[in-house]
Amino acid sequence: MSDGKIRRPRAETPKGFRDYFGPEVTERKAMLDRIAEVYHRYGFDPLETSAVETVEALGKFLPDVDRPNEGVFAWQDEDQDWMALRYDLTAPLARVAAQYRNDLPSPYRRYAMGPVWRNEKPGPGRFRQFYQCDADTVGSASVAADAEICAMLSDVFETLGLGGDYVVKINNRKVLNGVMEVAGLAGDDKAEERGIVLRAIDKIDRLGETGVRALLGAGRKDESGDFTKGAGLTDEQAEVVMGFTSARRDTGAETCARLRELVGSSAVGAEGVAELETMARLLEAQGYGSDRIILDPGVVRGLGYYTGPVFEAELTFEILDEKGRKRQFGSVAGGGRYDGLVKRFTGQDVPATGVSIGVDRLLAALRAKGRVDADTTGPVVVTVMDRDRMADYMAMVGELRQAGIRAEAYLGNPKNFGNQLKYADKRNSPVAVIQGGNEAEAGKVILKDLILGAKIAENATLEEWKDRPAQIEVPRADLVAAVRKMLGQ
Amino acid sequence: MSDGKIRRPRAETPKGFRDYFGPEVTERKAMLDRIAEVYHRYGFDPLETSAVETVEALGKFLPDVDRPNEGVFAWQDEDQDWMALRYDLTAPLARVAAQYRNDLPSPYRRYAMGPVWRNEKPGPGRFRQFYQCDADTVGSASVAADAEICAMLSDVFETLGLGGDYVVKINNRKVLNGVMEVAGLAGDDKAEERGIVLRAIDKIDRLGETGVRALLGAGRKDESGDFTKGAGLTDEQAEVVMGFTSARRDTGAETCARLRELVGSSAVGAEGVAELETMARLLEAQGYGSDRIILDPGVVRGLGYYTGPVFEAELTFEILDEKGRKRQFGSVAGGGRYDGLVKRFTGQDVPATGVSIGVDRLLAALRAKGRVDADTTGPVVVTVMDRDRMADYMAMVGELRQAGIRAEAYLGNPKNFGNQLKYADKRNSPVAVIQGGNEAEAGKVILKDLILGAKIAENATLEEWKDRPAQIEVPRADLVAAVRKMLGQ
Repeated sequence: MSDGKIRRPRAETPKGFRDYFGPEVTERKAMLDRIAEVYHRYGFDPLETSAVETVEALGKFLPDVDRPNEGVFAWQDEDQDWMALRYDLTAPLARVAAQYRNDLPSPYRRYAMGPVWRNEKPGPGRFRQFYQCDADTVGSASVAADAEICAMLSDVFETLGLGGDYVVKINNRKVLNGVMEVAGLAGDDKAEERGIVLRAIDKIDRLGETGVRALLGAGRKDESGDFTKGAGLTDEQAEVVMGFTSARRDTGAETCARLRELVGSSAVGAEGVAELETMARLLEAQGYGSDRIILDPGVVRGLGYYTGPVFEAELTFEILDEKGRKRQFGSVAGGGRYDGLVKRFTGQDVPATGVSIGVDRLLAALRAKGRVDADTTGPVVVTVMDRDRMADYMAMVGELRQAGIRAEAYLGNPKNFGNQLKYADKRNSPVAVIQGGNEAEAGKVILKDLILGAKIAENATLEEWKDRPAQIEVPRADLVAAVRKMLGQ
Repeated sequence: MSDGKIRRPRAETPKGFRDYFGPEVTERKAMLDRIAEVYHRYGFDPLETSAVETVEALGKFLPDVDRPNEGVFAWQDEDQDWMALRYDLTAPLARVAAQYRNDLPSPYRRYAMGPVWRNEKPGPGRFRQFYQCDADTVGSASVAADAEICAMLSDVFETLGLGGDYVVKINNRKVLNGVMEVAGLAGDDKAEERGIVLRAIDKIDRLGETGVRALLGAGRKDESGDFTKGAGLTDEQAEVVMGFTSARRDTGAETCARLRELVGSSAVGAEGVAELETMARLLEAQGYGSDRIILDPGVVRGLGYYTGPVFEAELTFEILDEKGRKRQFGSVAGGGRYDGLVKRFTGQDVPATGVSIGVDRLLAALRAKGRVDADTTGPVVVTVMDRDRMADYMAMVGELRQAGIRAEAYLGNPKNFGNQLKYADKRNSPVAVIQGGNEAEAGKVILKDLILGAKIAENATLEEWKDRPAQIEVPRADLVAAVRKMLGQ
């Protein structure tokens, strides 16, 4: 600050990005490790592509984005080719499946976990870098592959301790296409209308039946006054489409029966219903009942590229929203069959299906349910009473670490002892080790139980603590054993 | 290919980047997990910053690069600010330490593992995205922090099974500065010369004494004819500097004594020797002998920003280079004290020290020594003899997975059974499960031991296999138990 002319760089996370500290990293890693175990057991292999792809390879499959570069972070390389950060894990998979098609096993089951980047306006809880966790099967046209993804998703939730708190919902785009045929929306010239219908249905949870009907018809003005163009359907056509979204019945068999009525004579519609029935049968054979996986025609998924089965996992427990109102936690994963992505590169049909888990949302759900499984205890802190005896303190720390106990010596300026205890507190340290000159001469160390100390400070009258001293003196030789005991190991 | 006018995107990894498949991902993860365990035991907390930083925050600390944007992937955001992918994990740490200085514990011990990006010319084994694995202590001026980093590095190698195959070498920049003072290279006007000397010494392994002497003097023409400017030292000056690089003696005490002679009356030099002595004493107290950590004045580290202790870890076993010649594996990690990086942001001195492990090189070393610890066995493959009985096959797979056995059904076109076995082979599958119509009627399944089968195929006369059938038939109800037995579980 002495020289006003020096312009120091700002120490700021770039806008829309964030940093993750200690427990946030540990907890996410613990969750992803458990998910990876399930994926592995299902025969999926990890794949890690680079963060950077050519814009050409990424294509324009980002939802709701029409121009190639919109929504991604892109730059030109030394040959003037456009490069970009990947915006999801599916586009790189399609590139890999095409590039290594002669070497990869087919079908190719892969999972991927890692950050993706979106050049979008940041908002509360909306970041420009976030984690995805995907599993896909490339090269299988069988709906057994789709059913397997749904079963795996169910196993993931069970493994994470969310049994009874989730449901995986299955639908099929072909059924929707059949319904659109019945409504008179078949043919290439109706592609735009079909897109509007698709996105309208996808918003039913947010807009309600009235909002969706407006979008199916003339259009809808939202609260801000913005107008969204509708699909221009007649009331009769809209009725057919709405019948689809509410076709769910008590059992899968009844739902399928209702869907058969709705798709009428449409061949593609009948094919979709048959696929739903096959998936239901396969899942039943593996013991996945309707408490875990159900058929729900209300699920359509917004992405244009799905071609057959689509699925979505919802967490069914309630949380309070920002206004204190109860609402269901909602969707944390979704996916489906996309048979066209690899064809972009090779011209050949390569069937594929997969799922993407929203890592941050799922982790938030685990936190809300108290199901986070990660040890975030701090280290035992060996305090420094006498700067000249640092070697003694480091030797204590060395012994503790050798015994597998997380430990460290205080390495700041040791002058103010209060600062050392404040530091231990900030580190969430369970035990502080103290040895001043007197203790050293007597061959002793003092152990302070910081967890117990904190509890006593909270409520000093608690009966249960009265016989447990928050501080003990033990022989130096018993350091490791005594710390272990205090840690309850 | 029907329409010549369609220009398909190329399915290519961008130049200088690569994809990592199955075992490569698994093995790296296993290694990083074990390193993280050591870091954790030492009290270090994980930190994950975003891949993107402002160019302003990154600064120009990339080695051998003078202009801000050179060597990084950078672009302008919507406000015309320059953003870039991080080129190491130290620059983001300095930004975090400045940004959160009021909230972080001090000292702040953190580790970070993740990719970094360099916009450099790719070459063989040289990629534009690679992993680093760092641990740093910010806010401790004590060389106990430097000693701790060295001890931790030693523990990492022991944990990875490289005991006896590595050595951590310690030196101190202040000693080198003292030697430069003696050689008449003190003062701001000699900064360029000092930089050249530093980089010259750092290259001694590659250039030999003659090459280094050339760089200390008039300069050096390399094999390609390119000329590198020298520091312009006289022979006497060069002699003093070269004496430093060869000051290593049999014991740390003897080395320190020799260094004391060399730094003569230089105050900073004496300070450096004293720091080396303190570090040696602290490490000895924790039981790190000269078989693991040594003082070696030959180590200087190329980076300009180091201010005190520097260290480097070398693997001492021999491998064959690309020309079949034996050579030591060499350096896999390095670091040191850098007291100026946080000051860039805040103007206040914040002492810091840390180490960075080259993840790819260390993993290559583990592979060379056969110390990779990751299970890369493929899944049990349930083959599909009868497409209509897919539900039965999926039920078998479900049972195996429930029992914790990695398993999958073949989901490709089942028509050609040979393809299914080829697939199992490609997946490195240990067991194939087969059930045709006859077996299904008899309530049986056939299990093929593919690992044994491969061994028999290699050498059919092997005595040891003669009593072990490569294929058995078991009751369907015994599927899980029989597979488990075949897997040797």
